[in-house]
Amino acid sequence: MSLLSDRFDPGPQIAQCGSINLGTKSLEKSLSFFRDTLGMEEVERRGNVSYLRCYQELGHHSLVLTEQDEAIVNAYSFRVRRPQDVELFHDALKQQDIEVVEVPAGTEAGRGTAIRFLLPGGEHPFELYFDIDKPRAPEALRSRLPSNSSKRRGLGVRRIDHFNIQTSPSTINQAEQWVRDNLGFKRREFAYLPDQPDTVMASWMSVTPQVHDLAIVANRLDKKAQLHHVAFNLQDFSDVLTAADVIRDLEVSYGVGPGKHGIGQAMYLYVFDPGSDHRVELYAGGYLIFDPDWEAIEWKKENFPEGLTWYGDPIDTAPGSRGRDTTGSAGLRRK
Amino acid sequence: MSLLSDRFDPGPQIAQCGSINLGTKSLEKSLSFFRDTLGMEEVERRGNVSYLRCYQELGHHSLVLTEQDEAIVNAYSFRVRRPQDVELFHDALKQQDIEVVEVPAGTEAGRGTAIRFLLPGGEHPFELYFDIDKPRAPEALRSRLPSNSSKRRGLGVRRIDHFNIQTSPSTINQAEQWVRDNLGFKRREFAYLPDQPDTVMASWMSVTPQVHDLAIVANRLDKKAQLHHVAFNLQDFSDVLTAADVIRDLEVSYGVGPGKHGIGQAMYLYVFDPGSDHRVELYAGGYLIFDPDWEAIEWKKENFPEGLTWYGDPIDTAPGSRGRDTTGSAGLRRK
Amino acid sequence: MSLLSDRFDPGPQIAQCGSINLGTKSLEKSLSFFRDTLGMEEVERRGNVSYLRCYQELGHHSLVLTEQDEAIVNAYSFRVRRPQDVELFHDALKQQDIEVVEVPAGTEAGRGTAIRFLLPGGEHPFELYFDIDKPRAPEALRSRLPSNSSKRRGLGVRRIDHFNIQTSPSTINQAEQWVRDNLGFKRREFAYLPDQPDTVMASWMSVTPQVHDLAIVANRLDKKAQLHHVAFNLQDFSDVLTAADVIRDLEVSYGVGPGKHGIGQAMYLYVFDPGSDHRVELYAGGYLIFDPDWEAIEWKKENFPEGLTWYGDPIDTAPGSRGRDTTGSAGLRRK
Amino acid sequence: MSLLSDRFDPGPQIAQCGSINLGTKSLEKSLSFFRDTLGMEEVERRGNVSYLRCYQELGHHSLVLTEQDEAIVNAYSFRVRRPQDVELFHDALKQQDIEVVEVPAGTEAGRGTAIRFLLPGGEHPFELYFDIDKPRAPEALRSRLPSNSSKRRGLGVRRIDHFNIQTSPSTINQAEQWVRDNLGFKRREFAYLPDQPDTVMASWMSVTPQVHDLAIVANRLDKKAQLHHVAFNLQDFSDVLTAADVIRDLEVSYGVGPGKHGIGQAMYLYVFDPGSDHRVELYAGGYLIFDPDWEAIEWKKENFPEGLTWYGDPIDTAPGSRGRDTTGSAGLRRK
Repeated sequence: MSLLSDRFDPGPQIAQCGSINLGTKSLEKSLSFFRDTLGMEEVERRGNVSYLRCYQELGHHSLVLTEQDEAIVNAYSFRVRRPQDVELFHDALKQQDIEVVEVPAGTEAGRGTAIRFLLPGGEHPFELYFDIDKPRAPEALRSRLPSNSSKRRGLGVRRIDHFNIQTSPSTINQAEQWVRDNLGFKRREFAYLPDQPDTVMASWMSVTPQVHDLAIVANRLDKKAQLHHVAFNLQDFSDVLTAADVIRDLEVSYGVGPGKHGIGQAMYLYVFDPGSDHRVELYAGGYLIFDPDWEAIEWKKENFPEGLTWYGDPIDTAPGSRGRDTTGSAGLRRK
Repeated sequence: MSLLSDRFDPGPQIAQCGSINLGTKSLEKSLSFFRDTLGMEEVERRGNVSYLRCYQELGHHSLVLTEQDEAIVNAYSFRVRRPQDVELFHDALKQQDIEVVEVPAGTEAGRGTAIRFLLPGGEHPFELYFDIDKPRAPEALRSRLPSNSSKRRGLGVRRIDHFNIQTSPSTINQAEQWVRDNLGFKRREFAYLPDQPDTVMASWMSVTPQVHDLAIVANRLDKKAQLHHVAFNLQDFSDVLTAADVIRDLEVSYGVGPGKHGIGQAMYLYVFDPGSDHRVELYAGGYLIFDPDWEAIEWKKENFPEGLTWYGDPIDTAPGSRGRDTTGSAGLRRK
Repeated sequence: MSLLSDRFDPGPQIAQCGSINLGTKSLEKSLSFFRDTLGMEEVERRGNVSYLRCYQELGHHSLVLTEQDEAIVNAYSFRVRRPQDVELFHDALKQQDIEVVEVPAGTEAGRGTAIRFLLPGGEHPFELYFDIDKPRAPEALRSRLPSNSSKRRGLGVRRIDHFNIQTSPSTINQAEQWVRDNLGFKRREFAYLPDQPDTVMASWMSVTPQVHDLAIVANRLDKKAQLHHVAFNLQDFSDVLTAADVIRDLEVSYGVGPGKHGIGQAMYLYVFDPGSDHRVELYAGGYLIFDPDWEAIEWKKENFPEGLTWYGDPIDTAPGSRGRDTTGSAGLRRK
Repeated sequence: MSLLSDRFDPGPQIAQCGSINLGTKSLEKSLSFFRDTLGMEEVERRGNVSYLRCYQELGHHSLVLTEQDEAIVNAYSFRVRRPQDVELFHDALKQQDIEVVEVPAGTEAGRGTAIRFLLPGGEHPFELYFDIDKPRAPEALRSRLPSNSSKRRGLGVRRIDHFNIQTSPSTINQAEQWVRDNLGFKRREFAYLPDQPDTVMASWMSVTPQVHDLAIVANRLDKKAQLHHVAFNLQDFSDVLTAADVIRDLEVSYGVGPGKHGIGQAMYLYVFDPGSDHRVELYAGGYLIFDPDWEAIEWKKENFPEGLTWYGDPIDTAPGSRGRDTTGSAGLRRK
């Protein structure tokens, strides 16, 4: 008999930040950025839709680029822990009277059945799935390291890291509480709005030991639900510096960075996909939370600037001031 | 009603590799190494026992140095996920007729009640605990970053990372299977002995997304159960290079490294604590496993050398050959 | 017979940026910074004067800390190429009716006879010397690497790199031209004042393949001759990041950085010595100029911001605006 | 009147290691390596000859690839300090009865008149030139940084660094002495053969502050004059790690590294051009010598191993033993 008996059922759980489906006005420009500059593998192309993954991802894709008129986010997809968790979540959502759409297998290439719903309070399109193909890369790209699907190349993005989504200050509390209560995200670090001490300004949450797989941030400028950024992970701080050096010399709109967040202690660089104009964070390092009794860290107004930027290119979040990085991913950026 | 109902009980679980209690013949030399060179904080001293933690650890200690005649490992301690898991594990172990000793709160300073037993098949002393104090560092050492207990200093070890323990080839299969079945460790990467295809040579296992929190390796030379090494985590590959540069110039016995493992893809450097002569790995990077359906990677004989050393100073594991890093932590090393 | 006959006499030449003599109000605080935090060796102490060098410097000192009421720069010292060059420069300066003072051997400990004069147009006290002792470090500090005088420690400053001095816009042209004509410095990169196209705003000059051993910058705010900063060299970009991480957590006033200059392509971090309040640059990388026909690079107004900051924490030089890094080393800085 | 009068003539001088002309059996494979993997710019192609430069080189080329039957080195080219130095060296060589061939302008594309002779004692083909075109890169490749000829890409080699050539032990003393006496190279670090204490085993020499622009090493195995390696410079130690990570996964023969030399304190990685089978060193860091009275460092037998490898993958120079890196660039290497 094992100590860990089968009698225990943990219930449905989210396993990881899985993939994002980004609308882009120019698939060609977006591919040039994500595939040629960042070094992702284009695993499959179906008409005007391209599926890409990073060199350390074994699954079929973590990024879907869909050429369309409006560069919106089509879906934020999370992978669940067990095959049955898709249906278990489906049942539970219906019990909350949340509208759920079943997304048939193959709607995104290589992926099994998913469910789709709008984040309560946030209105962002979330999808949950378990099954995903794990295709081998073509021989020319394949790595000799079995934990890498393809050889490291370009700027070396190795996996998707997290989503940072913006929500109206009037609904952020509801959205943040909902993902904690219902999707199992734990609040790791957070801040309240300086002028509304009961309203979340930003919350970094995770289902993994990462400080965040998902952040929800109040959109004080536009009050809109939108993507702030999607982050891809690099190996080391030095890789972020190299990325900055290279990207500064390309026809790629440059945001803020490099710098080190106090919150999460990772290094950041924000740049914009030239096809979709969505903000992408190149991200490395950070601490991992293994303590099961982690107490969420609250950032007060006076320390918040160093929470955003412990060192390096400062992130300015005052709405409207310098305007740098205050808006969603169609926002202003450095020339 | 929440999607994640309280009706689900996951059972007792290990949360993390918690701490190691090392015997040392010279507390002074060991402190000089761990505290002054590596940069750990001495949180408490009780007679001839010193408690230390790294700058990113909030708990009371991850290393206990006990001055004693024999430099053995007194305990490998793992933290469980919930307070009740200590007792739940206790009950389950007794049902397997494993001898369990209750270790009263405070036996290790700052720690609550623990249970102690010998790893079946491995004979290593394991301890499980939940409660641990989280003392603030003295003001002079305290960091302004709330996720750091103290300021970064010395070579910048930031947390304990994993244990690598050796076991006789005749019992390794039993030991490895037991920790997987009973402590919830998942096999992530592994190899069989080249001449005994059913016997584990090495298995890297984790309860977290790390590739390993615990490795069990066959001791082909001495057939003894012993520590191969305890690893401490550094932020970046460059920090391992800096550590190598500095330590090469100190009166510290130098093992192998720096190099990058193919297995786990982390950078390694092995050095020896001058007080205890135990091998310590300074470790950075590596990939994280978020895939819930991860299939353990098997390393065959022909690729095993690049599994050990993808690049850098090669680890030689042929028993008796050059003798570098083949034995436990009282082993041979480079002059 | 050799191809390189003795008949050729290159005349007197400057070999290197040698050392700086800084006044400090608190020798204790300055030593804590330069010796304990940055990792310099205190080679000698004479009353209230301390002599320090970096771990890759074999000469007696590159920094003199003199406790005194006013934290001015007592001397910028350059080493000449040959013993006779001190006297040859002396003769040549007198022919220009420049007042020269002979500084007897031992006035700075470990140093031979020097000459001292005020930079024409700049008024900064320059000293030229050749002889300098090369003492071995005490055994506990001594490195096993013969090209290092001591073991690497602290933040790892390895040598003095350059001086950046400020001069009134009304005399900067004279000062800059004089050091080029008379001390053999070559202009490597430069800019004119945006509103005075014939007046140098900044000129980076060197006698070595470094882009600059000496920079002269117009002081538009105070119109005073003063030190902007003295730079110490670190091995890698990653060492500058580590320095930023550590110093942000200390009682050390933090200026701007890290970032990468477009001009010179080195990484910068500006911090302030807590004893003297002088600005110190921690500096790594950059390109070397081996082309004998190098043409000085002119930075026009529109590209100057990216010349100052190619990436990272932006340097703002608009006089009076945000005020960051616009003044000499008693200037404003980030809290 | 200037302090530095025109009356002083320093005589002819070497300014820098300029370029190497490598024979290759497969121009296609060599281009794939140097251009596509290392990131060099192909500036010009003339039939079966290709001219390349690194992203921080403004001159026309630092590497010439000539497709030919035998993968020998066609020329080691050094740039002189002044236009007239080509002829001054020509005259001086003739006075020593050394056979000199004039190489007309344009023989290597983009280069002016050169002279060619065999290194006395070494038999290596040396060429000296001054004039070289400085073409702008095509707009798509051009960098916005004026000190870079093109954008950083690939593994980011930024300039040629040095040559390491092998010579018979019976003539090495003559060759080494000759370049010091006649080309102005200074001996920076060196070792004698363990069994022949008057015979140079290796000498690292420079005309610049680098520890070496040229090394001459005794070829104890083949006794032949041949290239050991040509080195290209990377920005940081981390860039060498990235290069190792990437190249290990390519069809490129891998030699030794990464590791840090004690001699020169730079990081090394040896790989082999798949077209020519010549050894190429990817090289970063190292200390610079500004001291005009530098005393050459002698490495004794007992410390020589740590001179070769301070840390990292060890270089083994025992002739015939493991055979790693003991021979010229057609030598053995790791599979």
